[in-house]
Amino acid sequence: MNSQEGYVSDRAIVSMTNVNPMRETFNASAHLIFNPDAEILNIGVAQNDLMQDVLKDKVSTSLEFQAKDTGYGDPHGSKKLRDLVAGLINRNFQPVLPLITDHILTTTGAGAAVFFLTLGITNPGDSVLVIAPYYGNFDSDVCVGTQVDNVPFYPSVTDDGDVSIDMDRLEECFQNAKEKNNKNIKAVLITNPHNPLGKCFSRESLETVLKFASKHTLHVISDEVYALSTFSHILDEKQENPFTSLLSFGNLDQLIDPALVHVIYGFSKDFCLNGFRVGFIIDQHNTKLRQYLKSSALFSYISSIMDRLLRNMLEDAEWVDSFFATNQRRIADAYKCATSLLDKHGLNYIPSQAGHFLMVDATSHPKISTVDDEKAVFFALLEQGVYIAPGHIFHTRKPGYFRLTFTLDRQKLETGLSKLAKVLQQL
Amino acid sequence: MNSQEGYVSDRAIVSMTNVNPMRETFNASAHLIFNPDAEILNIGVAQNDLMQDVLKDKVSTSLEFQAKDTGYGDPHGSKKLRDLVAGLINRNFQPVLPLITDHILTTTGAGAAVFFLTLGITNPGDSVLVIAPYYGNFDSDVCVGTQVDNVPFYPSVTDDGDVSIDMDRLEECFQNAKEKNNKNIKAVLITNPHNPLGKCFSRESLETVLKFASKHTLHVISDEVYALSTFSHILDEKQENPFTSLLSFGNLDQLIDPALVHVIYGFSKDFCLNGFRVGFIIDQHNTKLRQYLKSSALFSYISSIMDRLLRNMLEDAEWVDSFFATNQRRIADAYKCATSLLDKHGLNYIPSQAGHFLMVDATSHPKISTVDDEKAVFFALLEQGVYIAPGHIFHTRKPGYFRLTFTLDRQKLETGLSKLAKVLQQL
Repeated sequence: MNSQEGYVSDRAIVSMTNVNPMRETFNASAHLIFNPDAEILNIGVAQNDLMQDVLKDKVSTSLEFQAKDTGYGDPHGSKKLRDLVAGLINRNFQPVLPLITDHILTTTGAGAAVFFLTLGITNPGDSVLVIAPYYGNFDSDVCVGTQVDNVPFYPSVTDDGDVSIDMDRLEECFQNAKEKNNKNIKAVLITNPHNPLGKCFSRESLETVLKFASKHTLHVISDEVYALSTFSHILDEKQENPFTSLLSFGNLDQLIDPALVHVIYGFSKDFCLNGFRVGFIIDQHNTKLRQYLKSSALFSYISSIMDRLLRNMLEDAEWVDSFFATNQRRIADAYKCATSLLDKHGLNYIPSQAGHFLMVDATSHPKISTVDDEKAVFFALLEQGVYIAPGHIFHTRKPGYFRLTFTLDRQKLETGLSKLAKVLQQL
Repeated sequence: MNSQEGYVSDRAIVSMTNVNPMRETFNASAHLIFNPDAEILNIGVAQNDLMQDVLKDKVSTSLEFQAKDTGYGDPHGSKKLRDLVAGLINRNFQPVLPLITDHILTTTGAGAAVFFLTLGITNPGDSVLVIAPYYGNFDSDVCVGTQVDNVPFYPSVTDDGDVSIDMDRLEECFQNAKEKNNKNIKAVLITNPHNPLGKCFSRESLETVLKFASKHTLHVISDEVYALSTFSHILDEKQENPFTSLLSFGNLDQLIDPALVHVIYGFSKDFCLNGFRVGFIIDQHNTKLRQYLKSSALFSYISSIMDRLLRNMLEDAEWVDSFFATNQRRIADAYKCATSLLDKHGLNYIPSQAGHFLMVDATSHPKISTVDDEKAVFFALLEQGVYIAPGHIFHTRKPGYFRLTFTLDRQKLETGLSKLAKVLQQL
């Protein structure tokens, strides 16, 4: 045995050997994706490039350094920043109980928010039930260092491609995990709007999740990082905005003890600022948990420079609200562009309502019947210089889905999709 | 039982009930320290204000935003940043094996570095032996969320106030912890230059730690965040720079398996930038551990803005080296000023060699014989508008020590010290 094998904790070893297809894919393709000479066209990572003109001006004028920024700030974010975020959520999420400063804790990204929340509500050996398919990095955010694993739950998909969650299937999944696999499920994790499907859950589905969680005294984590990137109501003005926040349930305490309900938000998606690494844990009813999260905030502390930059940006509420409106219109336009290109190439897809992506559906392709076939398409496309996100990294059950990010420059999208179409044709 | 009590994990509850005198003191005094109207004079937090003129210009001109900063960077820091840090360490720490990019992982502060390293090398139930007295926040960095606790080890103090570590006492501490308290010690944590004593350990003491760790297969974490804030060799040119990095041991592999040795560094102290939240884990020989730390880097990710700002600053190596030289001269001057003020007030202190602080020694004060007496001085001074760090938050064994930060504006220091002297007089 190499001596180094013994010089890592058991919990680190478990974290590195857990099922984590997103990490495996990244590792297998890192020599191309992270090779500057390879100049990979990225239509796989959830990045929204549509607002760069607007951001460039605002961020540049908001960047500022003051002498006091050399000193320690508040580990969970300055009061002013958290007040501004509270205002943003109060204007846009229809919370029943308006948010105040204390309800918000800042972290270095939504992934960090999920990680620190997981440590606060689970013990080693516990599991989290995740509404699947799911964002692949949850296999890191929930599992790395925590000795917790994920149990996927697959909701029903209706004929029009919508997902709905019913109690009986949730119950069946829970009992199976408990009885057959000895899992001690402690929480339900849902992304809404959903990643990778780009769908919003109905109020009924969310109520079902809350009632189910209440029955088994499970925490509910609602990751709402795409909340303000909905666009189906822009494309069809007869439709309502499809998003429902868990913060907006008037009858919450009749469904579940509100101390079990936590919401994740962040700047990466709705503000198109992945690189800024700013996330928030929102909790309105669990003071004990927030006390713990304030302790662990020491390890996921945004810089004074970033805190000030965001304060300067958010202070201009008019700019913020107009940013979201413009972004939604641009996402809607990009979606129309992407779907017409997909139609042109004869590629199927699952329509989406929100987020930066949709699922290209090549599941009926005669040459794709296994995950290895799906991987072959992924690597063939990568050889052509295009990175797309293969379905299995989101734990899809049927091979042949590819998550396409469409919130990109039209030229990039055209090139990427025509190469995808070609790879699928030549399979 | 309040329902919320049950809605926090056991590991969170343990983290909040562990011995943590620094957190207790902060909590007990937060209403004054964090009250802007109270305008507390802070001579307790390890903040170096001496370089603000130099930093103001450099940081302001280095702040920059480019479009690509909206996208994800490398979770453990950009290659360019890590290369520049490698260069900085190679120029200043005399590493036997020059650092390369891969030896460095970036985190949001040195505290976060200790936390993520702890997860990587310990399991729940393990303990860390910490050279005491020790930086109070190690009770958070090592213990919050990890289910690990600290076992203090008190080195001998020689007649001239120097600390030296001997094998027999280390062994005794280890065996006591194991046999009497059933502790499973997995690592030794040392700050060098030492916090709160401001002393550097001799090469002999460090060798003793390495041999002891080797004997019991313990990891060694050397927190060297004050490495370039030494000043005793400036005050007395006949002395050598007192700092010895664990990276500089030519015979390391004869003392210990180098895969057990890890160094912590960061921007908070030597660059006087506490608010920037940038730390580094330096590991040259444990690839498995680094692989784990890359996974957990997702949760402690510095922003693209900060990464670029630091690159812009560090690229100017001439500026960096002259910054350190100026800083050391200014710290030396501030130390002279502080000690002459202490002498003027008839206050005893333990001389220091490095860092931003020294220990005021009021242990022989007739009215101070318990920790409660020490706390009484702390709160009396706080009522006078001055925050100083009481010794017990660093786990000192004798009541009556107060860590004084002297890297401050002279006026502040004068006011703070005369109020301390007055409180001690009127006790």
